[in-house]
Amino acid sequence: MEIQNYCGTSRIAGCSFSVYPMADRFKEIILEALRTVDTSKVWIETDDVTTLVRGRIPHVFDVTSAIFLAAAKDGHHVVFNGTYSIGCPGDSTGDVYMAEDETKLNLPNVKDIKLETASKFSLYPLGGGNYMDTIYSQIGNMRSHGITVSKSHYSTRLDGNSIDVFEGLEHVFTETENSGSSHTVMTVTMSANSPSAKGGIK
Amino acid sequence: MEIQNYCGTSRIAGCSFSVYPMADRFKEIILEALRTVDTSKVWIETDDVTTLVRGRIPHVFDVTSAIFLAAAKDGHHVVFNGTYSIGCPGDSTGDVYMAEDETKLNLPNVKDIKLETASKFSLYPLGGGNYMDTIYSQIGNMRSHGITVSKSHYSTRLDGNSIDVFEGLEHVFTETENSGSSHTVMTVTMSANSPSAKGGIK
Ligand SMILES: [Ca+2]
Repeated sequence: MEIQNYCGTSRIAGCSFSVYPMADRFKEIILEALRTVDTSKVWIETDDVTTLVRGRIPHVFDVTSAIFLAAAKDGHHVVFNGTYSIGCPGDSTGDVYMAEDETKLNLPNVKDIKLETASKFSLYPLGGGNYMDTIYSQIGNMRSHGITVSKSHYSTRLDGNSIDVFEGLEHVFTETENSGSSHTVMTVTMSANSPSAKGGIK
Repeated sequence: MEIQNYCGTSRIAGCSFSVYPMADRFKEIILEALRTVDTSKVWIETDDVTTLVRGRIPHVFDVTSAIFLAAAKDGHHVVFNGTYSIGCPGDSTGDVYMAEDETKLNLPNVKDIKLETASKFSLYPLGGGNYMDTIYSQIGNMRSHGITVSKSHYSTRLDGNSIDVFEGLEHVFTETENSGSSHTVMTVTMSANSPSAKGGIK
């Protein structure tokens, strides 16, 4: 439970996430997606509720986005739900992965996949910091990359190409962290190929 | 985006949630579930990413738990993902529902459904308050109601009967609010009938 008042000093990031293929073959779709993704730069553990990846921010986003894209690229209605977290609770089981460089292992395989998605995200800077200007400038960056940004209840809605949206989310998360927030949490729900979506595959 | 530093005074609660049936018939399963649930005591709006319900805390939990149980009771692998929120941002579109009494409309229909589930939840008290004792006593209450509580990365894991887990989550959320937290957020992922679950339908 994230109820600690005092955080450790480890700056390892994590994402607790799931990918939901709305299909009878859901299990095969997830297993096939996991097989295509290189997870060697992150600590990864899957149980019956969620998958957790931990490591440096670029690799946490690289692996989560690549798994979602691998599951969604064939046209099934697939939803990604993840909570990105950095700064608390401090533990050390994944710290060895902090020595990795910043070269993303999966981006070359997924960067050309065009997939229209609808997302909602919420950012919870739990540890102070001077993040407001940061967030507004990152939202502006997203718009300049063709993402439609709108306000939703309790969240911000993003409509656009999946990998571009993940890139925008990574920038928001990274810059909030850089602004001095000692504990940052970001929740993301991303939907692809929804039958009720405007730009979805019919 | 939940980045406001100053909150309104409205104590309306909300839950932004989705129910994911891992089945080709996902759309029918969701629509059928929505049809069986009485939503007359909450403000409710569905788009292509999430459904939002807003109102008094008991009804927000009543409606979200009933929709999940209706979708999962026939044995499909179904996951609920929701973010419960109270205290911020303040807006008034659902305030008329704050006049409702506390009698839950759907509980009589779902209270006898036995459904083993695995959940993870995280609690983010964003607005101060004296919540630590509250949380520990609520966790103790859950254990006394037969729920297995364990620590997970970034979250607390709960294994038990769905409606009992929802009841426990409602108590944690309500008591955190009562403890003086001006803005409380709780994320919940609940999985039923997972093929990889210990107690799931095989
Ligand atoms: Ca969530």
